[in-house]
Amino acid sequence: MTTKLYHGAAYYPELWSADVIEEDIQIMKEAGINVVRIGEFAWSRMEPEEGKIDLGFFVDIIKKMHENGIDTVMCTPTPTPPIWFTHGHPERMYVDEHGHTMDHGSRQHPCTNNRYFREKAAIITEHIAKAVGRLPGLIGWQLDNEFKAHVAECMCSGCKNLWHQWLKQRYGTIEALNSAWGADIWSEAYLSFEQVPQPGFAPFLHNSSLRTNYQRFSFEKIAEFSDEQADIIRKYSDMPITHNSSVMFHVDNERLFKNLDFASFDTYATYDNTKAYLINCDLWRNFKKGRDFWIMETSPSHSASLESYAVPHPNGYLRVEAVAAYALGAEAFCYWLWRQQRAGCEQPHGSVISSWGKPTVGFLNVLEVEAARKAIEPIITSTRPTQAEVGMTYSDISKAFLKTEPHRKLHHRSLVTEFYNLILTQGIHRDLLPEGSDLSGYKLLFTPFLPYLSDELLSRAEAFVRAGGIWVVGPLSGGRTEEHTIHTDAGLGKLDQLAGVATLYTYPMDGTGTMGEAFGVSSPLSMWSAVFEPLEATAVGTLQQGLAPDKAFITERRLGEGKIVMLGSMPSGEQGEVLLKKLIDHYTTDAGVTQRTDVTSGTIVAPRHGNGFTVWFIVNMDGKGGKVTLPQGGLDLLSGEHVPAGTMELGRYEFRTIRLAAKTI
Amino acid sequence: MTTKLYHGAAYYPELWSADVIEEDIQIMKEAGINVVRIGEFAWSRMEPEEGKIDLGFFVDIIKKMHENGIDTVMCTPTPTPPIWFTHGHPERMYVDEHGHTMDHGSRQHPCTNNRYFREKAAIITEHIAKAVGRLPGLIGWQLDNEFKAHVAECMCSGCKNLWHQWLKQRYGTIEALNSAWGADIWSEAYLSFEQVPQPGFAPFLHNSSLRTNYQRFSFEKIAEFSDEQADIIRKYSDMPITHNSSVMFHVDNERLFKNLDFASFDTYATYDNTKAYLINCDLWRNFKKGRDFWIMETSPSHSASLESYAVPHPNGYLRVEAVAAYALGAEAFCYWLWRQQRAGCEQPHGSVISSWGKPTVGFLNVLEVEAARKAIEPIITSTRPTQAEVGMTYSDISKAFLKTEPHRKLHHRSLVTEFYNLILTQGIHRDLLPEGSDLSGYKLLFTPFLPYLSDELLSRAEAFVRAGGIWVVGPLSGGRTEEHTIHTDAGLGKLDQLAGVATLYTYPMDGTGTMGEAFGVSSPLSMWSAVFEPLEATAVGTLQQGLAPDKAFITERRLGEGKIVMLGSMPSGEQGEVLLKKLIDHYTTDAGVTQRTDVTSGTIVAPRHGNGFTVWFIVNMDGKGGKVTLPQGGLDLLSGEHVPAGTMELGRYEFRTIRLAAKTI
Amino acid sequence: MTTKLYHGAAYYPELWSADVIEEDIQIMKEAGINVVRIGEFAWSRMEPEEGKIDLGFFVDIIKKMHENGIDTVMCTPTPTPPIWFTHGHPERMYVDEHGHTMDHGSRQHPCTNNRYFREKAAIITEHIAKAVGRLPGLIGWQLDNEFKAHVAECMCSGCKNLWHQWLKQRYGTIEALNSAWGADIWSEAYLSFEQVPQPGFAPFLHNSSLRTNYQRFSFEKIAEFSDEQADIIRKYSDMPITHNSSVMFHVDNERLFKNLDFASFDTYATYDNTKAYLINCDLWRNFKKGRDFWIMETSPSHSASLESYAVPHPNGYLRVEAVAAYALGAEAFCYWLWRQQRAGCEQPHGSVISSWGKPTVGFLNVLEVEAARKAIEPIITSTRPTQAEVGMTYSDISKAFLKTEPHRKLHHRSLVTEFYNLILTQGIHRDLLPEGSDLSGYKLLFTPFLPYLSDELLSRAEAFVRAGGIWVVGPLSGGRTEEHTIHTDAGLGKLDQLAGVATLYTYPMDGTGTMGEAFGVSSPLSMWSAVFEPLEATAVGTLQQGLAPDKAFITERRLGEGKIVMLGSMPSGEQGEVLLKKLIDHYTTDAGVTQRTDVTSGTIVAPRHGNGFTVWFIVNMDGKGGKVTLPQGGLDLLSGEHVPAGTMELGRYEFRTIRLAAKTI
Repeated sequence: MTTKLYHGAAYYPELWSADVIEEDIQIMKEAGINVVRIGEFAWSRMEPEEGKIDLGFFVDIIKKMHENGIDTVMCTPTPTPPIWFTHGHPERMYVDEHGHTMDHGSRQHPCTNNRYFREKAAIITEHIAKAVGRLPGLIGWQLDNEFKAHVAECMCSGCKNLWHQWLKQRYGTIEALNSAWGADIWSEAYLSFEQVPQPGFAPFLHNSSLRTNYQRFSFEKIAEFSDEQADIIRKYSDMPITHNSSVMFHVDNERLFKNLDFASFDTYATYDNTKAYLINCDLWRNFKKGRDFWIMETSPSHSASLESYAVPHPNGYLRVEAVAAYALGAEAFCYWLWRQQRAGCEQPHGSVISSWGKPTVGFLNVLEVEAARKAIEPIITSTRPTQAEVGMTYSDISKAFLKTEPHRKLHHRSLVTEFYNLILTQGIHRDLLPEGSDLSGYKLLFTPFLPYLSDELLSRAEAFVRAGGIWVVGPLSGGRTEEHTIHTDAGLGKLDQLAGVATLYTYPMDGTGTMGEAFGVSSPLSMWSAVFEPLEATAVGTLQQGLAPDKAFITERRLGEGKIVMLGSMPSGEQGEVLLKKLIDHYTTDAGVTQRTDVTSGTIVAPRHGNGFTVWFIVNMDGKGGKVTLPQGGLDLLSGEHVPAGTMELGRYEFRTIRLAAKTI
Repeated sequence: MTTKLYHGAAYYPELWSADVIEEDIQIMKEAGINVVRIGEFAWSRMEPEEGKIDLGFFVDIIKKMHENGIDTVMCTPTPTPPIWFTHGHPERMYVDEHGHTMDHGSRQHPCTNNRYFREKAAIITEHIAKAVGRLPGLIGWQLDNEFKAHVAECMCSGCKNLWHQWLKQRYGTIEALNSAWGADIWSEAYLSFEQVPQPGFAPFLHNSSLRTNYQRFSFEKIAEFSDEQADIIRKYSDMPITHNSSVMFHVDNERLFKNLDFASFDTYATYDNTKAYLINCDLWRNFKKGRDFWIMETSPSHSASLESYAVPHPNGYLRVEAVAAYALGAEAFCYWLWRQQRAGCEQPHGSVISSWGKPTVGFLNVLEVEAARKAIEPIITSTRPTQAEVGMTYSDISKAFLKTEPHRKLHHRSLVTEFYNLILTQGIHRDLLPEGSDLSGYKLLFTPFLPYLSDELLSRAEAFVRAGGIWVVGPLSGGRTEEHTIHTDAGLGKLDQLAGVATLYTYPMDGTGTMGEAFGVSSPLSMWSAVFEPLEATAVGTLQQGLAPDKAFITERRLGEGKIVMLGSMPSGEQGEVLLKKLIDHYTTDAGVTQRTDVTSGTIVAPRHGNGFTVWFIVNMDGKGGKVTLPQGGLDLLSGEHVPAGTMELGRYEFRTIRLAAKTI
Repeated sequence: MTTKLYHGAAYYPELWSADVIEEDIQIMKEAGINVVRIGEFAWSRMEPEEGKIDLGFFVDIIKKMHENGIDTVMCTPTPTPPIWFTHGHPERMYVDEHGHTMDHGSRQHPCTNNRYFREKAAIITEHIAKAVGRLPGLIGWQLDNEFKAHVAECMCSGCKNLWHQWLKQRYGTIEALNSAWGADIWSEAYLSFEQVPQPGFAPFLHNSSLRTNYQRFSFEKIAEFSDEQADIIRKYSDMPITHNSSVMFHVDNERLFKNLDFASFDTYATYDNTKAYLINCDLWRNFKKGRDFWIMETSPSHSASLESYAVPHPNGYLRVEAVAAYALGAEAFCYWLWRQQRAGCEQPHGSVISSWGKPTVGFLNVLEVEAARKAIEPIITSTRPTQAEVGMTYSDISKAFLKTEPHRKLHHRSLVTEFYNLILTQGIHRDLLPEGSDLSGYKLLFTPFLPYLSDELLSRAEAFVRAGGIWVVGPLSGGRTEEHTIHTDAGLGKLDQLAGVATLYTYPMDGTGTMGEAFGVSSPLSMWSAVFEPLEATAVGTLQQGLAPDKAFITERRLGEGKIVMLGSMPSGEQGEVLLKKLIDHYTTDAGVTQRTDVTSGTIVAPRHGNGFTVWFIVNMDGKGGKVTLPQGGLDLLSGEHVPAGTMELGRYEFRTIRLAAKTI
């Protein structure tokens, strides 16, 4: 149970003079900053020459912060190895998909799989852990920074060797690999593991199995590095360890957080893209279930670099961002960054104070956040986020599949976010569930955009259905095997049988003039689609016109106490949105979901429960105000006033916290 | 004379188990597939280790097919050399324009000019020819697959040496090359052939002669490889040899087919791009005049790969595609592919049956094709395509010129196809003529978009004109020499004199506000243009406004019994289309062309003649139905009913075959 | 004082036969060409084998030209070293930002910093200078051709060494560099100069100081090469030396021309982009103040290459281009090129005569230019361009800053040209002033888009203000230090104090809904902006809505006899243009500027003064005609007629030269 809400900032004291640091601390205290994150780019300060390590400066900073009531999250500085590591050693550097070897400078320039890099990273990590691991004021750790944010799969020759080892471990024999990948095609077949290429230059596309597996190899290797670092730290520190990740990076977040202690993310969603902000909260809450997440980085106003900038937040937005995060399960809301960079490449990025030590345009908003944080801290720390009844599967492995096979430039994050938004804007409380998540407590599960459904997931979902859940599968789900090949037993493999259908055809619906009719709506259909013959199922949605008129694209099968619903195609356009919303509404009702309100779009209700009571955080996030029907009267915990049942209205960027009279929803 | 119509599919039995192969053959027979093409990617199955060649599997397949009444076209597997050829040998691989050396995987990754590649290719080809060359059921050969579809001119160092040899053979002395290329410009001049670069990295554009000649070198080298393979096969087999090519690939098709036995092409034109489909038929019929062509690959529904897909054909379209092809001179209509790929990178591509052995969305259309094929086979085999009276010159050499000098991103295929479409949609029967074609039998010849007109073509065309033909030259034709330089005797070289004009100016007309007036139409003019002073000619079209008002852009000169017509500029926009159509109509009438109907756009008439009679294949291809005036009554050969003269209407994707009462048109 | 007006052309006699040269000279004389520029690409003709230098051909050409009354500008041929220099020597070649090493061919392919290149360039330059330096008819020199037109900063390893030397010279110690660049950030810090990378491959952006300094290094190196060549020539020739440059190339023109004798530029602005043409005249006049500039290259009709072409000039435009240039301070108006290239890559480029020796579409326009030149020569040679009262700072260093930090794809040339156009179209006579220019004589100075303002410029501008001038600073000006870092003392460093403001915030205004109100206009604001608290200044423009309502974005401070005006943000859209025009108008009036007319947009007034009198060149450049109020009567110097005060109208592409009755304006 959270006992405190953090309000923090990334801080780079190694770049500034002692005077400036003193000034910073004073302003932090005025602004209510109670935690700083330090050290993630400071390797050259810690180890200016190879082997000459001195962490005194950082020890002093942590102590000084603690003396001023500010806690510290310490980072390992591995995204930026110093010049003594990189200079004259191209073999240690990251090689991109164009075959370009990185030079010193910027960040994420080393190959994180390089053996020497791992050695030096382990040494500096161990020194740091020893030096600060038990200091008062140290409350947590962050490994590295935004793994694979700027880079993807390294193509260096060192990685090539590791790739061969990984393949050998995975497949045992080269014959097994050839068979799994269907490598007889185009005479690709290999005679030994050493011959398997990285997915580099080719006249046309590489084999899908090669492309997807190389991404999985990369996912596992970066997680392995993360595990290594965490293991070292744990020898010297009891403080919890995290990493600041994102759905935008080239990692498998579920695997990455498996061996870490808490989950955190960075977000720079602009004020007009609230859904992208909220989906992170709803997903990160579930990487380490029951443990609050952190927003490790967000801007007090806008993100920027030399080559771009975002629109700054309107005044008032930052506060509701923070309140929404805390309400949805965040323990911390931290800025990147405290003091504007004077050098480098991110000088134009929003910060709390300027390079010349004055408040920035975001400063007053930071003060508003602090006031809100103080006000809601007792409420948050006496409650927990309510588990949703509706889940939606999230998979970074699917992101890899769609990178290999984007059909028509499909973009995983956009697809997922748009589908999520249809649930969000219908006032349904929801969890984004990593694909390995426990499904107990849920009534309705959506699994769109998972080309590959593992046997384990199929079993778990079947059990969920038999126990009374409704599982809506698709679109784009189930048509690929683990090796990114096509099933040879049935169109969607075992899923066909489970769903009680025969997948008749799979083909792209775009441009064929096909309409889908379901739930009283008729919508154009799009994307790579599956057309069904219901066997032990019934058709809920049927095709009109196009190539397969009267066949089914939505089917429903009762199984045990629940239902499995196939969604074979993607309704598109305005009518498509209507159809999908009707489908969601229908099965939400069908499943008996109660955690749902009539809150207007742009405003959210975040329910939390305490010991025998429920609190609603109602937050207007679009700046247009909103309203919701309170099902019963309650107590406004901030004003102390009673509020009656019925319509509650909120103003621009207003938020309310209502303790409902009885424990409902 | 064709004795049979083929209905075929590409088949990859090496990728599937014996059971699946049995199943495939049964379904093929149900679907009326009477020919398969095999082997083009199977090198690693044939020669899994270097020198260990075993072709038993393919011998058995051909026999098994034959036993089931299915013929086979055998391929050489050279687009995909196995891992033992590629691994550890970057010097054998294709190098692209960015200097990237291909790795193993995908296809067309070797350098086809590599000496070792040629050796190994010759060995496997000889083994295959020996093993299957005289098997019953083997009816033909395909060399390799889609030469230069994914790649263009190889930039490897081996090619550099061959390039130097080729140049030495072409020019004799380096002084001759320097002079021909005008290499004194920008101090490019070479002291020896060994110094001539490939057209690689440069701060600005390379010399046009270098760029165009490097393409011609590449064209000749791939044709040389084709010739080598054909020569080997002919030692062991009497069956005819082809290659599945396209106007989209980096080859000179006229040169390529010169030493092959019949012509074939692959096409994936979508249903709404009928002109792109038909232009292939009208061109391929003329690469090996008098010998029917094959459509070696087309999709039963849609083309696709991991990264894209096309819109599937509407139901009904496939049948009229096949009928139109057979009527226009095809002997075979073959699918790519029989069974959906389960692996690789083309899994989403349309096929006849799915990876799991069931009918795809295109299957019923394949059955329709088969029914139509059976019905028209007696009609086709007792007639021949009627030679057109109107020809249009086609040149892949010109494609190379426009790649070197695209002016404003001009695209050769689009230009040619749009011009062709103006003839097609006026109901004029037409032949696309490779530039070396015999012109006898034609009345009217269009030669647009040939920057370089060879002396030989000029002589042939002059003879054609003197004998009564009308030759319409331009736009964009004649302004460049063989070496891609500018003429120094006259604007269009010898053509000026032949056409009886002085080319006054050449300049880009776009944006100058110039209008062209001709045939009662006024149209904006565009593209790089030639402006004429008629000397022994008369002005038919004159310029208004712009930079050279009152000068001519269309001229006409009577020469012998015929006429030479210069078209110096490209009419653009809607009015431009009107003007061009009027010009085509005018000269079609002027030339006394009779093979012309009033068929509505989207429907075609393909005339064929038998022994003393004419048959019209009338095919609706746009799905909107159409009509045409029958000049006389006739017999509907499919229904057996008499049809009167006058208007005949066709429904959506309907086709009719009418034997006209008297031998006309 | 100019004594003659030149009308010239680039000429490549080395590419043509003796007969053709004779023909050329005859036509030149007919067309009034009185100067040719020769030799800039002729190195291989001069030195066909290394060390075998023969300049006889060029000596003869200069003599022959002189005999025919045609002067010559001789060039050094260094943009195109011959094959003996390049072949087999990749280490001598230019390496681009993608790491690609150039091969022989095209131009600017060598690394101009290569030691061996410099040696060979010095030798050929010395030979040329000796051979032709004192020939009659030789009137000037051009070094090389369009330095850095096709290339930017070379990334070769030779340059890397020079870069390290340059850094060592600039910073002395590596600690000083680390400190100046803030290189502690992201652990970039270097231990020695040898470790500093070129700004090559990186996962994300390189340090701004690295990026900007590498550009400055490149600017200085190419100017050093220019200086070297000039020094050699001066030993053997007294004729003035120039280079044909442009604002489009990767050079610092102010530095480049510092050690040359006169300034010249190349321009291919199309007829509808008059402002781009005029800005060059107004800028180049000021690189060598008091010395007339040359237009060394412009097309008689259109620019083009194999891969693009521009719209040819309408008839009549070329003449007013020439007249405007001469009036604004040009001594010469020269074409590229005389005779159309028959080979290479620029065959489609406009020329005076064609490859086959006939007039081109531009020829009649050239004759018109010649007629006008003759007519105005006495007027031009008896007057000088009048110095403007209004200046606008121009800085190629700022171009480098904006290349490093483009914010949102900002384009320096476009920004500058659009701002300039607001002055131009208000009839204000103006000078574009290189940033080091003497400010005496000016009343009003605009300094937009200079992220870095040097202390020296600040001092000079302060003195200018204290002496009575008005200095308008911004937008985008002053926010960066010389090292491309952020100030740490105040938002705009010393400028804050000078302007009497505190820069409160800097942030991007785009998308924030902020309106700026000033001069009675309300406009949206955009771009990276500075918001001010006036201290010793007054707010002239204030923000409405957005993030900082009621704060100032325009301030005005009286200082000494003058004013300093801060413009912190960029008004955008239609209203933004109105606001900026009002601002310009306001301060033009405020400053007491008199050199201003009410000439209609698209027509210009170029004032010149003689001994006690003023002449107005009034030139219609948009082809729509125009008018202007003559403040007093005057004499039309071409017709000899008196013209009254009041409205004077001009027709399409008409020009007038009016000697005003009294010396005003």
